[in-house]
Amino acid sequence: MGRSEHEPEPEKGGPSTFSPSAELPPLSAHDLGDLRRLGEQWQVSAAVRALPVDPQADGFRSSGGATGAAVLFRPDGAGQLTATAAAERRDTPEGRAAGRLRRLLLGRPLASASTLRERMPKLIALPVLASDLLSSVAYGPEAMLAVLVLAGSGALGLSLPIAAALVLLMLAVGISYRQTVHAYPHGAGSYLVASDSLGPRAGLTAAAGLVLDYVLTVAVSVSAGVAAITSALPSLAPFSVPMALGVIGLLLTGNLRGIRVAGNLFAAPTYLFLAAIVGLIAVGLAHAAARGFSVVAPPPTAAAEGLGLLVVMRAFASGATSMTGIEAVSNAVPVFRPVEWRNARTVLTWMVGILIFLFTGLTLLFHFNGLVPRSDETLLSQLAHVTFPHGPWYAIIQATTALVLLLAANTAFNDLPRLLYFMARDSYVPRRFLHIGDRLALSNGLILLAVAAAVILVAFGGRTHSLIPLYAVGVFLAFTLSQTGMINHWRRQRGPGWRRRAVTNGVGAALSAVVLLTAAVTKFVEGAWVVVLAVPVLIYLCLRVRRHYDRVRHALSLHPTTTGEPAGAGTIGERTPAVVPQQVRHLFVVPVARLNQATMRTLAYVGSLGQPALALHISPEEGEADRFRAQWATWGDHIPLETIQSPHRVIIQPLAEYVSALRLSRPDLTFTVVVPDVVVDHPWQRLLHYRTEQRLRRTLRRHPGIIVANVPTHLCL
Amino acid sequence: MGRSEHEPEPEKGGPSTFSPSAELPPLSAHDLGDLRRLGEQWQVSAAVRALPVDPQADGFRSSGGATGAAVLFRPDGAGQLTATAAAERRDTPEGRAAGRLRRLLLGRPLASASTLRERMPKLIALPVLASDLLSSVAYGPEAMLAVLVLAGSGALGLSLPIAAALVLLMLAVGISYRQTVHAYPHGAGSYLVASDSLGPRAGLTAAAGLVLDYVLTVAVSVSAGVAAITSALPSLAPFSVPMALGVIGLLLTGNLRGIRVAGNLFAAPTYLFLAAIVGLIAVGLAHAAARGFSVVAPPPTAAAEGLGLLVVMRAFASGATSMTGIEAVSNAVPVFRPVEWRNARTVLTWMVGILIFLFTGLTLLFHFNGLVPRSDETLLSQLAHVTFPHGPWYAIIQATTALVLLLAANTAFNDLPRLLYFMARDSYVPRRFLHIGDRLALSNGLILLAVAAAVILVAFGGRTHSLIPLYAVGVFLAFTLSQTGMINHWRRQRGPGWRRRAVTNGVGAALSAVVLLTAAVTKFVEGAWVVVLAVPVLIYLCLRVRRHYDRVRHALSLHPTTTGEPAGAGTIGERTPAVVPQQVRHLFVVPVARLNQATMRTLAYVGSLGQPALALHISPEEGEADRFRAQWATWGDHIPLETIQSPHRVIIQPLAEYVSALRLSRPDLTFTVVVPDVVVDHPWQRLLHYRTEQRLRRTLRRHPGIIVANVPTHLCL
Repeated sequence: MGRSEHEPEPEKGGPSTFSPSAELPPLSAHDLGDLRRLGEQWQVSAAVRALPVDPQADGFRSSGGATGAAVLFRPDGAGQLTATAAAERRDTPEGRAAGRLRRLLLGRPLASASTLRERMPKLIALPVLASDLLSSVAYGPEAMLAVLVLAGSGALGLSLPIAAALVLLMLAVGISYRQTVHAYPHGAGSYLVASDSLGPRAGLTAAAGLVLDYVLTVAVSVSAGVAAITSALPSLAPFSVPMALGVIGLLLTGNLRGIRVAGNLFAAPTYLFLAAIVGLIAVGLAHAAARGFSVVAPPPTAAAEGLGLLVVMRAFASGATSMTGIEAVSNAVPVFRPVEWRNARTVLTWMVGILIFLFTGLTLLFHFNGLVPRSDETLLSQLAHVTFPHGPWYAIIQATTALVLLLAANTAFNDLPRLLYFMARDSYVPRRFLHIGDRLALSNGLILLAVAAAVILVAFGGRTHSLIPLYAVGVFLAFTLSQTGMINHWRRQRGPGWRRRAVTNGVGAALSAVVLLTAAVTKFVEGAWVVVLAVPVLIYLCLRVRRHYDRVRHALSLHPTTTGEPAGAGTIGERTPAVVPQQVRHLFVVPVARLNQATMRTLAYVGSLGQPALALHISPEEGEADRFRAQWATWGDHIPLETIQSPHRVIIQPLAEYVSALRLSRPDLTFTVVVPDVVVDHPWQRLLHYRTEQRLRRTLRRHPGIIVANVPTHLCL
Repeated sequence: MGRSEHEPEPEKGGPSTFSPSAELPPLSAHDLGDLRRLGEQWQVSAAVRALPVDPQADGFRSSGGATGAAVLFRPDGAGQLTATAAAERRDTPEGRAAGRLRRLLLGRPLASASTLRERMPKLIALPVLASDLLSSVAYGPEAMLAVLVLAGSGALGLSLPIAAALVLLMLAVGISYRQTVHAYPHGAGSYLVASDSLGPRAGLTAAAGLVLDYVLTVAVSVSAGVAAITSALPSLAPFSVPMALGVIGLLLTGNLRGIRVAGNLFAAPTYLFLAAIVGLIAVGLAHAAARGFSVVAPPPTAAAEGLGLLVVMRAFASGATSMTGIEAVSNAVPVFRPVEWRNARTVLTWMVGILIFLFTGLTLLFHFNGLVPRSDETLLSQLAHVTFPHGPWYAIIQATTALVLLLAANTAFNDLPRLLYFMARDSYVPRRFLHIGDRLALSNGLILLAVAAAVILVAFGGRTHSLIPLYAVGVFLAFTLSQTGMINHWRRQRGPGWRRRAVTNGVGAALSAVVLLTAAVTKFVEGAWVVVLAVPVLIYLCLRVRRHYDRVRHALSLHPTTTGEPAGAGTIGERTPAVVPQQVRHLFVVPVARLNQATMRTLAYVGSLGQPALALHISPEEGEADRFRAQWATWGDHIPLETIQSPHRVIIQPLAEYVSALRLSRPDLTFTVVVPDVVVDHPWQRLLHYRTEQRLRRTLRRHPGIIVANVPTHLCL
C-alpha cells in the first residue's frame, strides 16, 4: 500500500462539508436563464420602487418595552444588515421563558462563522472515534458465548476457533476500510461510497442499514452500560430503564450543545477503559499462566439445542457485533489534521489492532476461567470479580466500562445526524435535517435519534441480549455495500495497483456479506426480521420523499411553458401561469359581519388599493340582511355589497364556496379575501371570540388560487 | 287572583324569543350617526366600484368534481342570494365524512324559517314540563328519610310533620309562581325576573344558581334513574357509571337533533309513571287500610347522631329537593297555546297538585310500611316490592320511574341552553352560546351541559345520595331571588291588588330563603360548600366576560376621536386611527427565501398593485447573501431587495422584528407582508416543508398593525 500514498485532490466544498446554505441551494445555469427571460417581461410602475422608508437606516431599534430599546440590526456598510441576538428574541413571555431555559441547557447560540471545523490530533481522534468499536468487546464476546451455551457447556470450547475467524474478519474489514479512507478523503461513509460507486439505490440501502444501526447502537450501548452498573450494584437493577432513558436525555442535551466539548470529554474515559481492560487481561493471563493455562471447567449446563452448524453460525454472527463502530474513522476523515487521510488511516490501524488484542484476550480469559453468561451479571463483571476478588480494581473496571459504553452511544449521536444531513441534501429525508441549530448541531437528527432509541429501549425492556439479534444485520449491510462499492471505484479509476486494491476490498465485501447473511438467516426469528423488514420500508419511504421533492422542484421551476394565465395565484400542474405583474387583474373580497372599527379599517385598506372590491355579508335571516343593507347605505355604499342568506346559519362554508365559485367563473382574476381580524391578548379571551379569520383561512387554503389577508385590529384592553 | 286576568301586552320580539340574528345585533342610532359621518369622509377611486364580475350571475355552480356541479346559490330576485346545502358542504374527504355522520346522528339541517315556535296543548305541556318536578319524588322523600335515620329508626316518625311543612312550602312557592307566570307572559325564568326587577347582579346570582342546578339535575336524575334500574336488576350495578354516561350521550344527541321530537317523546312515559305511582299509592293505602293503618315497625337502627334541630332541618332541606323543577312552567310560558299565561298557570296548578298528592302518599306509605333507606335498593323499589310482591307491577313501576327520571334530565337540556342564550345576549357568557345550530338547537349550551354533568357524575361515582347535598342550594337561591324580584315588580307596577300579590310572593320568597339557608348551613360540610363557593366564582367569571365584551365593543365602536393615524391597521386603545382610504399609505414587504415559481408569483402579485414594495431575504451565511443578490440582479431587480444576515440561522424572528421595527419608525405607513405559500395536499407532505408562512403569520400576529397575506401555490402532485 506504500505506493498509493499520493495526495488526493482536495475538492472545494466537497460532499462532506456542512453548510447552513445547504437549505438554500444555488440556481442552475438553466434556471438563471429562465429567471433572466422572466425578468425581461416584467413591467412595474415606478411607484413600486419608490420606497417610503430607508431599509438600512430605519428599523434598527426595538420598541423597548420591558427590556429597553435594543439594537436589532447592524449594517455592514456593504448594503447588508446583520441581525443581532435581540432580533432573534421571542416576544411573548412564554417564548422568552423557553428561550432562557434553552440557553441554560444548551448555551448561547453560535454564529455560522464559527463552523470552522474542529481538527483533532490523532491521540484525541483515537478515543473519540474508537469508543464505539472498543466498547463493543463489553457485549460482543458475551453474545457469542450466550449462543454457544445453548448447546451445553461442552460447546463453549468452540469459542476459540470462532474468535479466530472473527479476528480474520476484523483484519480483512480493517484493511478494506484503510483503502476506503484513502480513496474518499472528504469522508467515506458507506452512504457516500455506495451512492458514488454503486448508484443511488445502493447508497440508500446502505443508509437504511446505517440508520437502523445507529439507533440500535444507542439502545445497545446504553443498555449494556447500564448493565455494567447494575452488575456492580444489583439494587439498581429495577431502575435500569429509567436510568437508560436519563442517559439518552443527557447525551441528547450534550450533543445539542454542540460538538466542541465532545473531544475532551471522550479522551479520558476511553483511555481509562483501555488501561483497565488491558490490566485485566494482563493480570488474568498472569493468573492463568500461574495455573499452567489449565481451563477451569464451566458449570455444567444442559444443552437446550443440539450443537450444529446453525449454532456455530449464530455464535459467529453474534460475536461479529464486536466490530460495530469500525466504520467510525471512515465517516470522520475530515476531522483529522492534515494530511487527513493519512492520519485517519493510522488511527484506523491502531483501533483494529487494539480491538483484536482486547477481543482475543477477553475470549481467552473467559475460556480459561470457565465463565458462562448469566442474566444478572455481565461476563466482563464476572471476569473482573474472578481476577480481582479484592481491592478497588473491580469497581474501576465496571465504572470505565459503563462510561465508555455511554460514550459509544455518543458516536451514533455524531454520525446519524450527519448521515441524515447528506440524505436530506439528496432529498431522501425531510429538508429540516439540513437545518443547523443555533449551537451548530444538526438538532433535528439528534432529536430523532434520541426519540427512536428511547422507544426501542423501552419496547425491549432495556435488555441488551434481546437487542443484539437486531444489531448485526444493519451494520454489515452497510459494510458490504461500502466495500463492494470500493471494488467499482478501483475498477473505474484503474490507477496503479488497482487490481490488488479491488481484491482487498473484495475480500472485505465477501466476508461482510457472509456475516450479513448469517445474521439475517440465523437470527431471523429472534428479531433480525425487524431489520430485514425495516430496511425496505425505509428505502421505500426515502424514495417517496425524494419523489415528492422532485415533483415540487419541477412544479416550482421557473421554466415558463405558457403565459396564458394570470400571475398571483393558481394551481401548478396542468398549466403554468405567467408570473408577470402586468397580467394580474384583481378582485378584492371583504367578508363583513358587522360594521365597526375593525371592519371600517379593513374596508379602508381595500379601498385605498384602488382595485375592484366586493363586500360580502352572510346573513342568518332575511330581516337581518335587510337591516345590514340599510346600515351599508347609511355608510354611503362606497364598496359594492352582496348579501347571502345562509338558511342554516353556517358562515364559513358559504363564504368560501362563493369566492371559489366566482373564481371558477373568472379564472383570469386574482382573488384576495381581506378579513377583519380582532386580535386579543390572552388565550382565555380567544374563547370569547369566533376566530372567523382563522377558520376562513383554513377553509380557503384548500381552494386553490385565493389569497387571504387579515387586517388585524389589536385590542389593548 | 281572579281579577288579575287582564291580557298582558304582547311585546314584539320580547326578551324570550330566539333569533339567529342575535349574533348580529343592530346598530344604535348613535352608531348609525357615526357611520354616516365616517362615510361622508370616504374618497375612493371609481376603479373600486368597477366590478369585473356580476356577483349575482357568476358563481352559482360548484366545480363539480366527484359530486357533479351543484347549484350553490339561488338569487331571490330582490338582489340577494341564498346559499343551498351544496354551499355548506365541507370540501375535504374527512369533512364530508364528518358531515355524513353528523347528518346520520342529527338529521338534515333545518332552515331558520323553521324557527316557528312549537306550541303545546296543556295535556302535552303537562308531561313535558312536569317530568322534572314529579320525578323528584323518586329521590326527595328518600333523601329526607336518609337524614332522619341517622338519628335512629325512632326518628323516622318525624317524617310526617316535616312532610307537612314541605307541603306548605310547595303550596306557597306554587302560588307565588302562578303570579310570576302572569306577570312575565314572555317567559319568567328566574334570571329574567331577577334581572328585570332586582338589577343585573341579582339576575346573575340567580343565573349562577340555576346553571349549577341544571347541571346537577342531569347528574341527579340520571343517577337516580340508573339506580331505579339497578334496584330491579342488581347484576347491572357495577355498570352504573357507564350506563349513566350512555344516557347523557343519548340525551345530548336527541337534543342536538332539535326540540321537535321532544313533546311526543315525553307524554307517554310521564303519564305511565303517574299512573303507576298513583296505582302504587292507591293499592298501598288500601293495604294499609286493611291493616287498620297500623305502622310496621322499621328495622331497629342505632342512632349515628343525636336527634336535634339540626337533623330535622337537614331532613327538611333534603326533602325540599322534591320541589326541584317547579320553575319549569315559568321558563316555558311562550310554548303554551294562547292565552299562554292562562294555560301555563293552569298547568302549574295541576303540577303542584299532583306533586303534593304523590309526595304525601309516598311519605305516608314509607311510614306505614316501616321502610328505611338502603344503599342497594331505592325506597320506591322497596315499597313496590312490598306492595306488589307478585306480578308485573313491580317491573312497571321501576321501568316508568327510570324513564321519567331520564326525561327529567332532559328538562335541563331544554332550559340551560336557553338560559345561556339569554346570558350571552347580555354578554355574560361567551357569544357562541347565541349560535343556533343547524338543527335549530342551541348546540353549544347542550354540549356544555352534557360535559359538565358527565364530569360531576364521574367525580361522584354516580351515587345519587352524594349529589343531593349540592342540589338544593342552587335551585332555592334562584327561587328566592325570583320571588323577591316579584315583590319589587308589584311595588313598581302598583296595579289593582298589588299589595296582596306582593305579600303572596313575599311568603314564597321568605320560605324559599329559609330552605336556602337551611340547606347551605346544614349541608355545608357534606357538599353544599361546593355550590356556595361556585356561585360567586361563576358570578365573577360572568362579570369578567361582560367587562371584556364591553371593552371590545367600546374599542371597536365607530365613534371617531382623532383622525391623525392612518387606517388599515393599528392598535386600538390609546389612539383611534382614522378609517378612510385616502389616508392609507402602503408598504408591501415580501420575504423571499429562493427564487422559484411560487416566489415569482408573489412578486408579480405585489408588483401589480402599484404600491411601494420591499423584498427581504434572510441569509444564514455571508456567501449565500451575495449569491442571492446576484440572482436578484439576473432577474432584473424589479423590486428593491434587502438582505439580512442571520448569524444563528434563525429565520422567523428577525423577519418579524425587522418589519416591526420599520413600522415603529414609520407608524403612518400600513405594512402588508405578502408571503409565498406552497400548499401541499396530504398531512404527511406537510412534514416535508417548513411551513414558513404559518410560522411567520403566528409571530407577526403579535406585532400590532401588520397585515399578512399568503399567496398560495397549490401543488397538484
